[in-house]
This record gives sequence, structure tokens and C-alpha cells, in this order.
Amino acid sequence: VSNVRSNRVIVTGVPRPPIEQLDELAGFGVATVHEALGRDGYLGPELRPIQQDTRIAGSVVTALVWPGDNLMVHAAVEQCAPGDVLVVAPTSPCTDGYFGELLATSLAAYGVRGLIIDAGVRDTAELREMGFPVWSRHVSAQGTVKATAGAVNVPIVVGGQTVYPGSAILADDDGVVTVPQRDLPRAIEASRAREESEQATREALAAGELGLDRYNLRAVLKELKVEYLTYEQYLESERAHE
Amino acid sequence: VSNVRSNRVIVTGVPRPPIEQLDELAGFGVATVHEALGRDGYLGPELRPIQQDTRIAGSVVTALVWPGDNLMVHAAVEQCAPGDVLVVAPTSPCTDGYFGELLATSLAAYGVRGLIIDAGVRDTAELREMGFPVWSRHVSAQGTVKATAGAVNVPIVVGGQTVYPGSAILADDDGVVTVPQRDLPRAIEASRAREESEQATREALAAGELGLDRYNLRAVLKELKVEYLTYEQYLESERAHE
Amino acid sequence: VSNVRSNRVIVTGVPRPPIEQLDELAGFGVATVHEALGRDGYLGPELRPIQQDTRIAGSVVTALVWPGDNLMVHAAVEQCAPGDVLVVAPTSPCTDGYFGELLATSLAAYGVRGLIIDAGVRDTAELREMGFPVWSRHVSAQGTVKATAGAVNVPIVVGGQTVYPGSAILADDDGVVTVPQRDLPRAIEASRAREESEQATREALAAGELGLDRYNLRAVLKELKVEYLTYEQYLESERAHE
Amino acid sequence: VSNVRSNRVIVTGVPRPPIEQLDELAGFGVATVHEALGRDGYLGPELRPIQQDTRIAGSVVTALVWPGDNLMVHAAVEQCAPGDVLVVAPTSPCTDGYFGELLATSLAAYGVRGLIIDAGVRDTAELREMGFPVWSRHVSAQGTVKATAGAVNVPIVVGGQTVYPGSAILADDDGVVTVPQRDLPRAIEASRAREESEQATREALAAGELGLDRYNLRAVLKELKVEYLTYEQYLESERAHE
Amino acid sequence: VSNVRSNRVIVTGVPRPPIEQLDELAGFGVATVHEALGRDGYLGPELRPIQQDTRIAGSVVTALVWPGDNLMVHAAVEQCAPGDVLVVAPTSPCTDGYFGELLATSLAAYGVRGLIIDAGVRDTAELREMGFPVWSRHVSAQGTVKATAGAVNVPIVVGGQTVYPGSAILADDDGVVTVPQRDLPRAIEASRAREESEQATREALAAGELGLDRYNLRAVLKELKVEYLTYEQYLESERAHE
Amino acid sequence: VSNVRSNRVIVTGVPRPPIEQLDELAGFGVATVHEALGRDGYLGPELRPIQQDTRIAGSVVTALVWPGDNLMVHAAVEQCAPGDVLVVAPTSPCTDGYFGELLATSLAAYGVRGLIIDAGVRDTAELREMGFPVWSRHVSAQGTVKATAGAVNVPIVVGGQTVYPGSAILADDDGVVTVPQRDLPRAIEASRAREESEQATREALAAGELGLDRYNLRAVLKELKVEYLTYEQYLESERAHE
Repeated sequence: VSNVRSNRVIVTGVPRPPIEQLDELAGFGVATVHEALGRDGYLGPELRPIQQDTRIAGSVVTALVWPGDNLMVHAAVEQCAPGDVLVVAPTSPCTDGYFGELLATSLAAYGVRGLIIDAGVRDTAELREMGFPVWSRHVSAQGTVKATAGAVNVPIVVGGQTVYPGSAILADDDGVVTVPQRDLPRAIEASRAREESEQATREALAAGELGLDRYNLRAVLKELKVEYLTYEQYLESERAHE
Repeated sequence: VSNVRSNRVIVTGVPRPPIEQLDELAGFGVATVHEALGRDGYLGPELRPIQQDTRIAGSVVTALVWPGDNLMVHAAVEQCAPGDVLVVAPTSPCTDGYFGELLATSLAAYGVRGLIIDAGVRDTAELREMGFPVWSRHVSAQGTVKATAGAVNVPIVVGGQTVYPGSAILADDDGVVTVPQRDLPRAIEASRAREESEQATREALAAGELGLDRYNLRAVLKELKVEYLTYEQYLESERAHE
Repeated sequence: VSNVRSNRVIVTGVPRPPIEQLDELAGFGVATVHEALGRDGYLGPELRPIQQDTRIAGSVVTALVWPGDNLMVHAAVEQCAPGDVLVVAPTSPCTDGYFGELLATSLAAYGVRGLIIDAGVRDTAELREMGFPVWSRHVSAQGTVKATAGAVNVPIVVGGQTVYPGSAILADDDGVVTVPQRDLPRAIEASRAREESEQATREALAAGELGLDRYNLRAVLKELKVEYLTYEQYLESERAHE
Repeated sequence: VSNVRSNRVIVTGVPRPPIEQLDELAGFGVATVHEALGRDGYLGPELRPIQQDTRIAGSVVTALVWPGDNLMVHAAVEQCAPGDVLVVAPTSPCTDGYFGELLATSLAAYGVRGLIIDAGVRDTAELREMGFPVWSRHVSAQGTVKATAGAVNVPIVVGGQTVYPGSAILADDDGVVTVPQRDLPRAIEASRAREESEQATREALAAGELGLDRYNLRAVLKELKVEYLTYEQYLESERAHE
Repeated sequence: VSNVRSNRVIVTGVPRPPIEQLDELAGFGVATVHEALGRDGYLGPELRPIQQDTRIAGSVVTALVWPGDNLMVHAAVEQCAPGDVLVVAPTSPCTDGYFGELLATSLAAYGVRGLIIDAGVRDTAELREMGFPVWSRHVSAQGTVKATAGAVNVPIVVGGQTVYPGSAILADDDGVVTVPQRDLPRAIEASRAREESEQATREALAAGELGLDRYNLRAVLKELKVEYLTYEQYLESERAHE
Repeated sequence: VSNVRSNRVIVTGVPRPPIEQLDELAGFGVATVHEALGRDGYLGPELRPIQQDTRIAGSVVTALVWPGDNLMVHAAVEQCAPGDVLVVAPTSPCTDGYFGELLATSLAAYGVRGLIIDAGVRDTAELREMGFPVWSRHVSAQGTVKATAGAVNVPIVVGGQTVYPGSAILADDDGVVTVPQRDLPRAIEASRAREESEQATREALAAGELGLDRYNLRAVLKELKVEYLTYEQYLESERAHE
């Protein structure tokens, strides 16, 4: 076994979080969990769902692929188990359609819950029809080859976040957030607490209380020397200014 | 009161257009009103709706915010009234999710009709579900802080247009257009006239009349020396050329 | 007739493929046909549909337009016939809304099946409602003028592909692919063959066979010296590495 | 005279700031003046110089142009006077080369100090050779036509800022900042003060004083609950975490 | 020989234009030749030189490459002859560094004048030092593999233009323009004529004549109903408007 | 000490590689080291130098900053030592100018060799003049505040790579590559070996040997079924095809 960081390994037997925890996680939105984690783990605004109103949570299997080459996606399928979500990143930016309905059929046969890919996907109509959820950076019919090595189940970077195999991952219409396995119980607990406190806030706001008061922001504005001007005062100051 | 252009003011009591005019404006599409205004006021192709088939019109309340900081969005809520639309711009490009379902709940409690934001929004599924319409440049779960000053109800720039507080604003699937308060009656009138003239054009085109004839474009083509070639003539000229 | 490559011609009487072949082509997805053609002809990931779950095939009529100017779109309408698809490209990148519901009405009156435009489109809600399908690079309410010459039915470039008048074109949720007229029978045949072979693959994958085995990729991995490591071996090698 | 906001006007006789003030302004960097103005007026990171190590200041003449059309640039030349800087913005994004060495020759004949263009420029080697400075968003050899109306000396938007005719403008390797005419004396004074205070800071920092101490940031870090950990403590906490 | 459009061919013995014509072409700027050709053939603003103040002209050899794979660049070297310029395009967008100092050494040994690549290049400091000029879309140290087929000397698309093997190509600080072999004499002649007429214009403009007069644009402005307003009239109309 | 992944820590006393190793590393180009590492560690094509022909190597100190807020850059200065390179990443994309000549003065006082920032920098002319090298994603005069927490010396992500404090980093005109501390001796050794083997290759290529032969690529082309056609054969096959 080499002790150099390798781009040519397939790591087997990655430990997963308990399925029940993943299912609990799926009860919360991406924004909620991201906040509950101290605003960590969000995979950025470039990954967009090809479907609407779908949320999944699962355990991460990663594939690191060469531009225009999906060999390692096929290698990754074998490492997938029920409850997993496959997360794919190219070594350089690539728009190609690495993944379509056949690969989804294969993943579905192994109980995989969805795909997150920092590149392109195709057969989007078919994927929606078969109910296989995908978050991707591009949609592209352009196919790929199977000729160049990469890696499976090594840490990969997507959207400015390092994503680890065996971490939990959650995706919905707001994007994707990754939760380290060890933080998962705390993330669930903190998300539940956040939802409860948000419910009180929601009711207060719906009743007309202002965030300015509820979050004590008037003091912040004052400290920052933000002035209140009437429209007339403002016009006058602008006229002086022009 | 300072007479320097200030990034640290909250302007109160901005006069609004009559609600009835806003409601009339909502009867026309963004493209129609943009044309009726002499092709002015369009906020550009980067602002996209998070929902489909929704159109709103309202009176503009603006918030100028720091990257990654939604303090002034909270300050803006207090300045909102029924019929308003909140328009938010960051001082530098930012993808963060400045706004979610709680702020929407608060705005809805004050009768605000929607949000236009030249940055990110989150809780998009929840926003669609509660029927609070949003046009944004990004969708992002990434949260913001409340630590840096900005302004409320000063002119801001979105998509190459200066947007003024108290102006009318109209948004649908084609994007967003802003209408100066004083031009609002004329914009409505001109839009109505345009719709009527378009109806006649629509019928003529549906009956097979060509735009070339209806808009007198054959003369333009001739003046520009555009030639008609048969396919055979064209092939021949190309063969000569290659 | 000039023998210089001309940007100022309108070519008439371009021969089309038989309508029945176009209708057959419409029975296959863009990704399938792109593969069947040896991965040629895809117009890239930037052209996105304004509607979902729609597929069209037709014969190409092209328009080459100046930025912000749709004069040649009007000139192109006259050259359209039932079964055609209009394909528009600007001479420089442009986001403007070259095309809306009135032009769609006109094209529909001539039996045109849809629009592919490497620029902006507007009236998107109305276009969806009237069932006129569009693939575009942008959505923009910004209107255009009719003042500058261009060309109709000359080869144009969209998304890194040269698109020829009279070629077949196919568009669905994955984007757009163009098929040379002469290759059309072969493309249909190869697509049908591909679909059949994919059906067998689909069943095998659904039954749990791996792509690794089905496509003989284990040999490729081995030749590329991709190693299998257990999670424990991997951790150990990484620890040595850090 | 129409009282509708017009895209078809050429405004003459715009009052300028005194040349001496512009020359004083040119003694400060863009970043300095931007700070001195309370961080207002910066035209954003997309405008880049075609030359290096050049700084100019002048009085703004604006041109609002159609995509692919430089008619109004020609109209603007006549409105230019010694000490002016021409600022050009298209009504929609455009990469075309609106301006080259001939127009620079013409502007130079009228004492114009440079060009700021939110679109493309060409003849860049010649422009550098003749010493005519340009800041642009693109470099492109693609030429433009002269067929569509626009405006001269109306306010235009560049990089998220509204730029007014007769304002001062300053450009160097960091980009471009605009200074309202009335604020110009204050901007110069504040820039000078800033430079002086920066000199003291520079010496202190060069001598090893930390910004943490000089700007009293240790208190801020403490209030924000930022913790100091030794490398060993950090590794331990991470190990607990993974 | 297959009669399907092939992505897997290397075309040998492409006829070149006479070297003397290429050398003459190199006497004109890209913008001049682009104009002389009727504004055709420009490869767009995304291709930027890695050096400054260099201009080359040559005969095109093309390579069509897979993302992240430079196999066909090596195949193309063998097809190069003195006076050639290698033009490389990937089948999908790719930022990788396909080309560096070793390949430049090889090309230089065969008399090749430079590289145009719609992807990435590396060893830029070394390339400048050895005087091998390059225009590229990206600079990237990321290396490529040699595993997937492509083509040499087939037409390729770069920047919205189809580039043919054996065409002339010209590159300078404004970008790249391609000239069909047959048009080359005319392009040279028209460029020379243009330069001469520009010299007269240059002198007139330097003497203070306005483009408005020289190009008869006052009539155009009048026809377009562009109004002249004094600054005072304009302010008044705006005040009425606000 | 918390065992949650913290965005609010400053890690002190990070072990560095020996200065001599860093100096040795600086003897090789980024592309060479990237290759020597098995094509790992490259920070992507978006980080560009503000100067030309400069190469630095150093030990990484990281700062994770909030958009528009450089508080943690100041905190990072205190953690810097001679031979270090500061690497800064924002939590969300940001173009602002986090860093200028004063901060460079401070870093230089502590022996820091340069800055890598995945955001904006300003005072670029002054930085070049004082010889402080910078690689950045943007140049922007827009200033930042000092109000929001981040981290110093935690792993950060730049350009799809995780960058660790105490790793080596190398930057030149081709971009930036990071080398894990432990791999540094091997990276130096492999780079030296690569340079030696490249010298032999360089001489062979300069003497006219083809890469096709030297790298045994004719076999690859054959296996991939790439055909050689004469120009006449190709034309004929295309004519059959059109």
C-alpha cells in the first residue's frame, strides 16, 4: 500500500451512519441543518436539483472522475449500499453528462437514494419519471468515455466543501449540506431545537412583531450609527449633495 | 443630518403610488410594460423567479446590504406597508441566502407582495408553499450575519438599473421591470394600448400575414442590401468561396 | 451573386428531410441520438428549455442576427414551412429577448414546431400556455430593434456546433442535437438499435448486474493500476501521509 | 421637450469640476478615494485596464449605447472637452469592440484623458502605443454598426454604480471610482488625510506592530468568541470530531 | 473510408496558402482584417494572448481533443509544417493545461508559428521566454492524459466560428481571426485599402474633424429622432419626470 | 475546548516544513511539481498572479473569512513567520479587496513571502512596486469591514483543493500548487527527476523526434481506431456525407 495520497484507489467497507439517523435527518431542511451545524457543510449555490419539492438524506459514497470520463462512477456503484447517496466530482470543471437513466437504474437496484454531481447529468426527464433524484451543476446530453483512472470513497471537494465518504448528506430545493458522521446526532438534535424555536418566532412574526425587536437589532443599528431620516430630510440632504 | 451621500440611512415615509394603479399594472406582462416605457427599467436576465406563472406589482422598498449580512433586510421590514415589494441589493456580488421563510412570514404580516433580491434566497420550497413570490439571482442555503450597516429606501442598482424607493415594480416569469411613480399612469395607458394593438397584430399573424409586411421590413432589408439567393445559387457561391 | 462569404443573404428553397423521418426522430431522446451519431451534434449545456417534458424534432431554418436586433428573425419566418424548427444565433453574445408570443403566433401559423435560440426569449408564460416550445440561453424581457442586416439559412454556430439549414434537429429536456440530413435514416436506425440494447442492459442492471461486469471495466481498472483498499488500509496510508 | 425619461437625448453643456481639482484627484489611488468617500462609487472588479501602471482623473461624459452599435460614441465625442473621460455603457451586456484607435485619435484631439467602457475595446496594442488609457470589460476585435439610438450625458449604470455626467472619475490598476462633483473637494481632502494617517500606520506595521493591536481587533475577536487553540489542542478536537 | 462524419480521423496533406500571403497578412491587425472580411471570422473575446505586443499569421492545422486529454495534440504535431499555426478545441469546455513548453519545443522544431487553444495552457513563463506565442482561454497547470480519440485537420468550432484546416489565421493582442484560403488575397488587398483610408481618417480626426460629420451620422441621429437638450432643459425634464 | 468543527478558532504553533526544503521547492515550476505529485494539489485556473515572472514557495498559514470582512486576515498576520505564505478563502464567493499595501507591509515585516487569496486584492500597482507577490481571483478596490468571526490555520478549500496549514505551497505564472508537508522531500526529488527526464525529451523533440514516437502513441491511436485519411479521401467522405 502506497503512502502517497492516491488518485487511483477504491476504498471499500466505509462505515455508514445508522439508517434511522439518516431518516431523521431527512425530516429537516438543508437551510435548517446548515444553521444547526454553525453554518458549515453547505455545498454552495451551483448544485441545483433537476426535480422540485424532493428531499433526501443518505450516507456518502464518493467518486472522483476525470473530465469527460465516468469510469469511476461505474466502480462506485459496486461500493454502494441501501441508504447511500453517490457524490461525484471531476478533477477539473466539466459539463458533460456523466450519468443517466441506466446508471440510475443500477443505483436504484442497490437502494441508493440519489445522486449529487458537480458536473453534468442527462436523461433528466426519465430520471424525474423514475423518481431518482439528482442535484447537478449542469444538464448535458454529452456522453463520457471510460478510459482514465480516478478514485472511489476518497474525500472530494464540491462547492468549496470537503465531502467525506460515510458522512451524512442532505439535499433539497435549497441545495446540499454534508454532516460529519459523528456530528449527526447533534445535528438532528440542534435542527429539532431550531425548528421549535423557529415556530415561536414564526408565530410572533406572523402576529406583527418585528425582527428588529425580536433579535434586538435596534441596538446594533444604533451602534453602527445608522440614521433614520424622513423622506423630506433625505431629499434635502441629497439636493445639498448633488 | 449629513449632506454626504450616506450608506447608513433608513428613510421613512416614502410616498407610494396608489394601490389601484399598482393593481392595474399587475394586469400587464413585464415585456409589455418594458416596451410601453420605451424599453426602459428592465432589471436584466439574471433575476429569476423561484416559482412559475406568478405576476406581482407593488411599490418599491429598497434595502442595500453588505455581502453576507442581512441586518438591513430586518430594518427594511419596519418600513414596509401593504402593497409593497421589497427590493434588496448587496454592495458587492454575493450568493448567500439573505432571506427565507421567517422573513417572508414577517413581510406577509405587513401586506408585502413579494421579494426581489440581487443575491441569494433560501427555503424556496417553503416560500412556494406559502405563496410568497420571490425573484432572485441565486438560491443558497448559506446564512448571513447581522453586523454591518447598510441603508433602507435609498436608490439601489440592480441589473444595470437604478431602482428608486416608491417606484412601482412589476415581476413575472420574464423578470422584473421598475416604473417611476410619475410614469405609472402613462405606463398603464401605454401598456393597454400596446395590448390592443398587439391583439390586432396577433390575429393578422395567426392568419398568415408576415411581420416582414406588417412592419414594412422588406424595405429595410433592401436598404441594407440583403440579397435573396436560391439554395442552388448559395451552394454555387460557397463552392466558389471554399 | 457575390462569391464572398456573405452575412447578408437569405437563402430560399432549402431542401428538407421527409417529415416522416423527423417524426420518427422525435421518438428518441437527445442523449440517445447524440450517442447513436457517435457523440456528434450536441449543442451544449447552455441551451435550456422554458418548458418541461417536451420533445420536438424538425428541419432547421437558421437566422444569424445582430446583437439586440431581430430583423432577420422576421425575414426567417417567411422561409419556414410545416415541420421546421427555427434556430437563431447572434453574431456576438447577447441576452436580449429576440422572440416572444407574437413571433410564436406567426411561426405556429406556418406549422413551425419550435424555436432554438442562442440568446434571450420573452413572454415565456404565454409561450408555455400556447404550447410553443422554446430552448434558449437566456430569458429576458429586453426588446430588440430591426435595423441591422444578418442572414437566413446560412450555417450558424451554436454551442460549439455548426448547424446547417435543412438538417434535422431534436430537442428535449437534455438540450438539443442536430442531425445532418443524409445521416438521418442511419441516426434513426442506430437510435432504435441503441434503445433495444439499452432495454436489455436496463433489465440486467435492475436485476443487480454491475456495469463493471457488463462493460468489462474491471480489466480497465486493473490496467490503469487502480487499487482496492479497505477503509482501514486507507486510513493507515493517509495517516502515514499526513 | 418630452417629460418622459428618454433614451434618445444628447445633453449639452454639462458643467464640469475645475481641472485643478481633477488633477489633484489624480494624485490618489482608486482604493484611497473609494475609502475616503465612505466606500462609495466603485465601478466594480469587471472593468480592467488594458495598460499597467497608469492613473487618470477626469470629468465624466457618458454614452448609452445599443448592443453592437457605437453610434452614440460618435455623438459623444462632440460633447467632450479637455479633461474629460468618456464612460460608455451598453443597454444590454455586449462584448463587441465599440472603440479603437481611430476614436481614440479623435478623443485625444479634444483633450480627452481616457475611456471607461462596460463592453469591449479593440486596437489595444495601438492604444497602448499612443498612450490612450482604457478600462474595459472585454477586449474584442468584433466591430459595431451605427444604426440605433441611445443617449449622451444621461446617468448610466456601470458595475452597480450610477455614473453621472459631470462627475469626477478616477481610474488606475485597481479599477474605477466615480466622485460626485460636489463631493470632490471633500474627497481630495479626505484622501489626503487618509494618506497621511496611512503613512503613520505603514511605518508602525513595517516596524512590526500588528493590525490586531493598532485597530483594537483583539477586543472584537473576544466579543465574537473566537478561541485560540494550540496546534495540539486543535488536532485533538478534530480527532474527537471525526 | 467511412462516410459518416468522423471524430476519429487524422487528415494528411491539407493544402496551405502560400507563405508569402501569410506573411503579408501578418502585416495587418486582427481588427483590420476582420473588418476587411465584412466582419467575419473573429474567434471571439475569450481567447487571450499569454504575451503582449505579438502578432502572427499562419496556416491552420486543427486538433479536436477530448476534455482532459491531449493525445490528438501529439498526433497533430506530425501534420504540421513551417508557417503553420496549431488550433485546438475540446469537445466539451475544459480548463486543463493541454500544452506546455515541451510541445512548444516540438512545434518550433517543425517551424510552427504559434498555438491557438480554446482550453488551457501551462508553462506560460517558459513559453514567453522561448518566444512561442499562445492564445488560450485558460492558463492551468493541470495536466492531461493520452487515452481518448479525437481528430486532426477536421473543421472545428472556436468562439462561434468554424475554423477550417488550411485556412489562414491571424492573431494579435485583440484576439484571433480566421481567413478562408481563397479569400486571402482579397483580405490582404482589402486590409491594405482599409489601412490607407484609415490613414486619411486618422489625420482628419487628429485635426479635429468629428466622426459625426465624416461618417454623415448627424442624418442618422435625426432620422432616429435623437434630441439635443441643454443641461438645463434636461434637468427640467427630469424634474418633471421624478 | 469544543469538539465541534469550529469556524471560530485561531490555531497557533502549526509546525512548518524546513525553510531549505521550501527554497528547494521554489526551484521548480508549478506544472512540474503538480505532475511530480501525480497531478494532485493544483488550486485551479481562477487564481491569477498580479505580477509576471515571479515564483515563490512557502509554508501555508490559512485564513477563513466572511464575505466582505477581513478581520481574520489581521488575526492571521500574528500567526505568520518568515517563509510563510498566507492563503485566504471566503466562506462564500466574494470579489472584495480584502488585502492591500498596508497588510502587505505588515506581512513583509514578518518575513511572509506572498499572498494567495480566493477573493479580491487591491493596491495592485503598489504591491508590484514593493515586490510583494499576490495570486488572487479578483482585483477590486472595494474595502472590507472587520466585524464577523472566521478562522486561522484551519483547513480551507481553494479551487477544488483542501489546503492545510503547514503544508508547502508553490506559486508562479501557471497558478498555485499545494504540497503536503510529508510529501515535500519526495515532491522535490520527483520534480528534479522529472526536470532531468524532460531535458532529454526537450533535446529529442528539438531535434525533430515526435511525441507520437517518443511516448509510443501510435499504438494508442491504432487501438482507438483513429484513421489516417488524405485530404482528398476526407473531402470525398464529407461530400458523401453532406
